[in-house]
Amino acid sequence: MPTLYDYLDSGNGYKIRLLMAHLEQPYRRVQLEIFHGASRTPEFLAKNPNGRIPTLELDDGTFLAESNAIMWYLAENTTYVPQDRLGRAQALQWMFFEQYSHEPYVATARSLIRHHAPDSPRRAEVPERQVKGHQALAVMEGHLARRSFFVNERYSIADIALYAYTHVAPEGGFDLSAYPNLLAWLGRVASQPRHIRITDTPMG
Amino acid sequence: MPTLYDYLDSGNGYKIRLLMAHLEQPYRRVQLEIFHGASRTPEFLAKNPNGRIPTLELDDGTFLAESNAIMWYLAENTTYVPQDRLGRAQALQWMFFEQYSHEPYVATARSLIRHHAPDSPRRAEVPERQVKGHQALAVMEGHLARRSFFVNERYSIADIALYAYTHVAPEGGFDLSAYPNLLAWLGRVASQPRHIRITDTPMG
Repeated sequence: MPTLYDYLDSGNGYKIRLLMAHLEQPYRRVQLEIFHGASRTPEFLAKNPNGRIPTLELDDGTFLAESNAIMWYLAENTTYVPQDRLGRAQALQWMFFEQYSHEPYVATARSLIRHHAPDSPRRAEVPERQVKGHQALAVMEGHLARRSFFVNERYSIADIALYAYTHVAPEGGFDLSAYPNLLAWLGRVASQPRHIRITDTPMG
Repeated sequence: MPTLYDYLDSGNGYKIRLLMAHLEQPYRRVQLEIFHGASRTPEFLAKNPNGRIPTLELDDGTFLAESNAIMWYLAENTTYVPQDRLGRAQALQWMFFEQYSHEPYVATARSLIRHHAPDSPRRAEVPERQVKGHQALAVMEGHLARRSFFVNERYSIADIALYAYTHVAPEGGFDLSAYPNLLAWLGRVASQPRHIRITDTPMG
């Protein structure tokens, strides 16, 4: 049974938990208090030298890092990864978009607000993150104007990757009411079989 | 024949040019003057709503964005993508590492120095980018201490993704002499058959 090194509030960790729930894959979960340095200890850096969760430990002791790469490993050759060459590349396109143009703004605005006091100097970074985050949300809104899901009109790991931090974007100060197609897509994702919430831990 | 929307100085664009050279894949190249807004025109945003190069136009008129997703599309089922499930996930792990933990620091330090005057206020961002860039380079150095290439001891698109901005890191003020294993790897990449330089355009 694989072991997931995780942090419950993390959207990147939630991607793996949500996919595992869809796949009905049992796993152990280890909660690391990342805001108290638990992902930068010598012990954890031996598992992932980049010092980040989620990290997945496979049965043979191999460690795999990067949420979207872990999802690819778990979902390859299931219905959660497109079955055609172009579809696979388009799923990866949206997953790289998520990590480069979305997560650094939508997720970090939320993290700054949740984990730094209102008078912290770090809070000064929030407005610019929100501007760039809205740019990413607008790209998603345009794509979803004519589509039900991101690739091939079928729910896939590309949707999971983008759902993870988008559905909690209001916690980062993002008003999503200007994005009706995005809101409808959030509802479609949440209605998928075996969906769990970001606060749900495995096996209830 | 596919069309690559590109900018010659871009490491992300170079990834595609280098892989195309390895694959002996003919293509058209369109140079966009991205520092003069050419990737944010209505015409280009219709091709890639995220307004970034590289973007690849396929023969059927489909546009594919995100350098590492384009590489996956071009190289799937060739020797440049690992043939085993874990190897594919590890290649993606390093490609997501590149876009999240490496490119935003190693590439942008170079871009700030090359495209902003020494007295520009943007130059104030360089030192922090260099600190985080060195953290990424140190992770690479550690991985390469016991390996010839990033995955399965074989040159792959993971190496191309990381080579693109690492080999020009000195242009961003990074001294690579503290990373002997990384320097040896740079040499192994540059000695691969059909290697081209970042300044080389296709077909000579």
